[in-house]
Amino acid sequence: MLQTKTQFRVRYADTDKMGVVYHSNYAVYFEVGRTEMFREIGLSYNEMEKNNLMLPLVDLYINYKRPALYDDMITVTTTVTEMPNVKIRFDYEIHNEQGELLVTGYATLVFIDMLRNRPMRMPDNIRALLEPYFA
Amino acid sequence: MLQTKTQFRVRYADTDKMGVVYHSNYAVYFEVGRTEMFREIGLSYNEMEKNNLMLPLVDLYINYKRPALYDDMITVTTTVTEMPNVKIRFDYEIHNEQGELLVTGYATLVFIDMLRNRPMRMPDNIRALLEPYFA
Amino acid sequence: MLQTKTQFRVRYADTDKMGVVYHSNYAVYFEVGRTEMFREIGLSYNEMEKNNLMLPLVDLYINYKRPALYDDMITVTTTVTEMPNVKIRFDYEIHNEQGELLVTGYATLVFIDMLRNRPMRMPDNIRALLEPYFA
Amino acid sequence: MLQTKTQFRVRYADTDKMGVVYHSNYAVYFEVGRTEMFREIGLSYNEMEKNNLMLPLVDLYINYKRPALYDDMITVTTTVTEMPNVKIRFDYEIHNEQGELLVTGYATLVFIDMLRNRPMRMPDNIRALLEPYFA
Repeated sequence: MLQTKTQFRVRYADTDKMGVVYHSNYAVYFEVGRTEMFREIGLSYNEMEKNNLMLPLVDLYINYKRPALYDDMITVTTTVTEMPNVKIRFDYEIHNEQGELLVTGYATLVFIDMLRNRPMRMPDNIRALLEPYFA
Repeated sequence: MLQTKTQFRVRYADTDKMGVVYHSNYAVYFEVGRTEMFREIGLSYNEMEKNNLMLPLVDLYINYKRPALYDDMITVTTTVTEMPNVKIRFDYEIHNEQGELLVTGYATLVFIDMLRNRPMRMPDNIRALLEPYFA
Repeated sequence: MLQTKTQFRVRYADTDKMGVVYHSNYAVYFEVGRTEMFREIGLSYNEMEKNNLMLPLVDLYINYKRPALYDDMITVTTTVTEMPNVKIRFDYEIHNEQGELLVTGYATLVFIDMLRNRPMRMPDNIRALLEPYFA
Repeated sequence: MLQTKTQFRVRYADTDKMGVVYHSNYAVYFEVGRTEMFREIGLSYNEMEKNNLMLPLVDLYINYKRPALYDDMITVTTTVTEMPNVKIRFDYEIHNEQGELLVTGYATLVFIDMLRNRPMRMPDNIRALLEPYFA
C-alpha cells in the first residue's frame, strides 16, 4: 500500500454562493494529492508527459459528507491499495483541521501511450518505484 | 421521466495542458444541465435558495469515454428517472456535435432546510411541478 | 471598428461565498467574447493554433462596477477599435439583463509564431478578414 | 510598507491547452497572496466577513511576462505601499523557482459595510494592525 498526506488551505476562489467549497473542486484537490504522491516516490508527472506517457481519468467518484470552508487547512490522504497495471486507482479522504472527514472518493486513471494514443501497461521504471510498497 | 438537453460551447478556460477539457469541469457542465432542467419546468434555483432551500451534492460519479475539446458544441442530457423525495438523482450524458458520447455520470443532491440545517422532503410546490413527468 | 455581443448565463460554479461572481471569472467571460468575435468574422482560434499561431495575453485590466449574480443572463460586448499588427487589443463591457453595466476592461494579446516562439505580425489571411471593419 | 511572500505549486487544473497557466488564474494566486498577508499580521478575512465587512475588488491589472508551468513552485510577493483608507491596493509579483519574473499586477479592494451595503473607512482595529508598517 502506498499512502501520502498533503496539506493546503482552501482558497476563496474555490467557494461558491452556498458559502462552502464548490463540489467540483474536490476533484482538483484529489489531483494535488496524486501529484504529491508521485513526487514523494520520485516520480514526476511532468517527466512522464515528456516521455509520451499520459494519465487521463477513466472515472471519478466523490462522496460529500461535510463541506470544506474558505481558509480551512485541509489534508488530502491519497492511497493506492493495489499494484497498478494498465490502470491506477487512487482512493481519497479529505479531512479538515478538526479531524472531521469531509469527502471520500476515488479516481481511476489509465496509462496512455501518446505516440500510439492507446492504453499501455505501466512502464517498468514506474513499476520499479512502486513495487517496494506492494511487497 | 424528466429529460432536458442543453447545448453550449467548451471554453478555452476549461481545457488543461493535455489539450482537452480538465476532468472536474464536467461536474460544472452537469450543474448547467440541472439548472436548465429546473428552468424548463418553471423552477428557479435562485428562488429555492431565497426560500431557505438548499440542494448540496451527496455524491457524484463521472465516467470518461472521450475528451471534449475547446470550442466543441456539446450537449448535456440531464435525466431524472425516479420521483425524488429527500434526494434527487440526475443522470447525465454529454455528447459532442458528431454525436459521440463523451462522458456519462450522475449527481445525487439532497433537499436541505437551511433554517434547521437538516435534510427535508421535497417541498409540495416542487412535487407538483415534477408529478406530471412521473405519472 | 469590430464589435460582437455574446450572451450566456452565469454558472453556479462561477460564484463565490460573497454570493456573486468570483472576480477572476470575468476574464473567462472576456475570452468567450473574443472566441465568438473570431467565429463571427470567420476565424477559428482552433485553426490558428493548428497553423502554429498562438495568442497569449500581454496584459489584462478589469474594472468592477456591479457584481454579476448566479443565473444572470449577461451580455459581453467585445470591441476592437484599432487595426491590430503584432498585438491585438480587445475592449470589453459586460451588462446584465437589466442593462446595468457590471464590468469594463481590456485584454491585449500578442501574435506568437509557435515554431520560433517569437512575436510576429498578424498573418495576412487574418488581416484580410479584419480590414473591412477598419476601412 | 507591508510585504508578504507566499509559495505554492501550480496545479494541473490551472493549466490550459497552451500548456501553461490559464491567464485568469494569476488573479487567484493574487488572492492567495493577500489572504496570507492578512494572516501574517493577525487578520482573518473570515473574521472580517463575520463582522459584516466585505472586501470586493474595484479593479485588477495583470501584466504577463513569462508563463508559469504545471508543478512550478511559484512565489507570490504581495505588497501594500500606502496606508489604506476606504480602499486598499495590493501590488503583486510572481516569480518561479529560477527567480524569473512571471507576472506583475495589482488589485484594488474597497471596504464595504455589509449591513448598509456601502463603502466605509477601514475599521480602527485593522488600522491598528497596519500602522506599524507605515510609520
